[in-house]
Amino acid sequence: MPCFVTESQSFRPLRAVAPLVIRAGAWHGSGMRIHIQNPAADDLFAITPAQWNAACARAGETGHHVSFAADGAGFAAAIATAEVLIAQPGSVRALLPLAAPALRILFCTAAGLDRLMPFDWLPPRLVLVNNRGVHGAKMADYAAMALLMLNARVPAFADAQRHQRWAPHFVPPISGRHATVVGAGDLGSAVARAARALGVRTTGVRTRAEPHPDFHRVVAIGDLDAALPESDFLVLACPLLPATRNLLDRRRLGLLPHDAAVVNVGRGALLDQDALADRLEAGELSGAVLDVFDPDPLPPGHRLWTTPNLLITPHISTDDPIGYNPASLDIFFANLQAWREGRSMPNRVDPRRGY
Amino acid sequence: MPCFVTESQSFRPLRAVAPLVIRAGAWHGSGMRIHIQNPAADDLFAITPAQWNAACARAGETGHHVSFAADGAGFAAAIATAEVLIAQPGSVRALLPLAAPALRILFCTAAGLDRLMPFDWLPPRLVLVNNRGVHGAKMADYAAMALLMLNARVPAFADAQRHQRWAPHFVPPISGRHATVVGAGDLGSAVARAARALGVRTTGVRTRAEPHPDFHRVVAIGDLDAALPESDFLVLACPLLPATRNLLDRRRLGLLPHDAAVVNVGRGALLDQDALADRLEAGELSGAVLDVFDPDPLPPGHRLWTTPNLLITPHISTDDPIGYNPASLDIFFANLQAWREGRSMPNRVDPRRGY
Repeated sequence: MPCFVTESQSFRPLRAVAPLVIRAGAWHGSGMRIHIQNPAADDLFAITPAQWNAACARAGETGHHVSFAADGAGFAAAIATAEVLIAQPGSVRALLPLAAPALRILFCTAAGLDRLMPFDWLPPRLVLVNNRGVHGAKMADYAAMALLMLNARVPAFADAQRHQRWAPHFVPPISGRHATVVGAGDLGSAVARAARALGVRTTGVRTRAEPHPDFHRVVAIGDLDAALPESDFLVLACPLLPATRNLLDRRRLGLLPHDAAVVNVGRGALLDQDALADRLEAGELSGAVLDVFDPDPLPPGHRLWTTPNLLITPHISTDDPIGYNPASLDIFFANLQAWREGRSMPNRVDPRRGY
Repeated sequence: MPCFVTESQSFRPLRAVAPLVIRAGAWHGSGMRIHIQNPAADDLFAITPAQWNAACARAGETGHHVSFAADGAGFAAAIATAEVLIAQPGSVRALLPLAAPALRILFCTAAGLDRLMPFDWLPPRLVLVNNRGVHGAKMADYAAMALLMLNARVPAFADAQRHQRWAPHFVPPISGRHATVVGAGDLGSAVARAARALGVRTTGVRTRAEPHPDFHRVVAIGDLDAALPESDFLVLACPLLPATRNLLDRRRLGLLPHDAAVVNVGRGALLDQDALADRLEAGELSGAVLDVFDPDPLPPGHRLWTTPNLLITPHISTDDPIGYNPASLDIFFANLQAWREGRSMPNRVDPRRGY
């Protein structure tokens, strides 16, 4: 029994002013003061003491002194002594200007930290760790679904259903078609594995043209233009960085084949949404499936809601309400153990690169 | 070069009054008089002389005397001497009352022949052959897509998109969920293979509880009621027969779990569409993806067009415009060769059973 949980009535809503503190049965020297700041308005992805204890057991971790909060007062009370902060990126930017004199490690429970960039606010001694690796299984499902929907023309069928119009369109099976996937990290490689399982050929696009076992071939980002005309599907699955903002701009959209289709599971600002809508309205692409938007959530009245041959999912491609927190905590402990042992931390973020 | 094609200007629209006749270079004893009756109003699935020749080459068939038509006059001219008729079920019922004194084999280019039942019009000497086996690859794609869409709640997202409403719903990956598939023939086994590739457990439902390699387990149709409460997904993939009409009726829909989902790729009349719409409107199922309807096509104004959490595809789950005719002709020749050699024909239909 690695950790002892103090359950209290005031904990239940996860919004207690005083943070719940869980102290290990014997708090020994290797244990750390860890604060978990849960989202204030979202119980679904709040890390629970039960999830924490189960993760401690899986990792063989004992002796930590952990606190939970979901509001500013709880954060303020804990951050004065916390050595590790576990939080979503959205909370971090608002809260971290508070003094955190003992803080050594910041674990952000998201793979993409674009909302925190640039990292000029980050104290040099603070080790920043992201959640890359948490999204594989969900993303593989989403990618297979999006590619199959686009091959079958489901976005057009959903349009037709709105107008009570029976408009069949017959296509060959997806096997043998070609997907270009921008990004070969956690998300991109999950997309590639899903595509390959369907018989789809995959080209990965990454910073340098280093081979990757999940892709049939890899090209450097500088050669993206040459890959676009050969793409039946273009999937954006990379982080949003200065170098990738507006990557799929109007000119590059024009390099895709007439009946190509677009998937975005990275960030909305990776593509020129207006240019995409223009092409879809002109019938110049066969369809698009978007899960991320700029702004995100997509506000009512935005033209994308009514763009033809476009299917919108509300940023659900990666998050798993059952598996997300356990997988996140496993990633956290793998990194904590590497840090403690002086090994390279698999998820440490280079603030200059942003990933 | 197994067949010699007489191309003619009048052939191009496939609606010539006089049937186009292709005669083998040397029409020898083993060759047969084969008439291909193409659909009158559908060029997409019309069998072309080029497809016929390619299939002859693949099968090593020579010496046949083949005619093509797409109208009644062409049919009348050919049927007087034809020994084999290749046609869609829709054409057959309208045309076959014409005298066909030499006809030995009728190859219907559809897997389900429900529209031809009962077979009281079928001369006893006529061998009826269906197209079972042609749909596997397309059906596997469709089944994977439908299961993934239902797991992710895409039908609800399409509803929300209509109302410009951002309504996320987060679910675990599909792996480990449970699909019950009614039918273990060509379609059902393709569904099962697709489901297993996603990590979905599969129960097959067939006439008798004989094991089937594509399913984790098989139950007899008489035990369907016991399988329903364990089903995350119920997939109808069986022929429409007197015994399967209205199989998923109001009572059986009530045996499914509250958040189960329904897929129909068989025939519309396999389920009680009104009862399904009632449950979806009451929020008692998580969604449905339907590709077949009663009536089919679904007419404007039908309540299913606006049923919530229902995604409609217009009977496209099985047809592949590039691969369909070649695969159909390969099945035809496999059966013709079995017939010629006195072997059991893999696609021969038992008129009493209907499949």
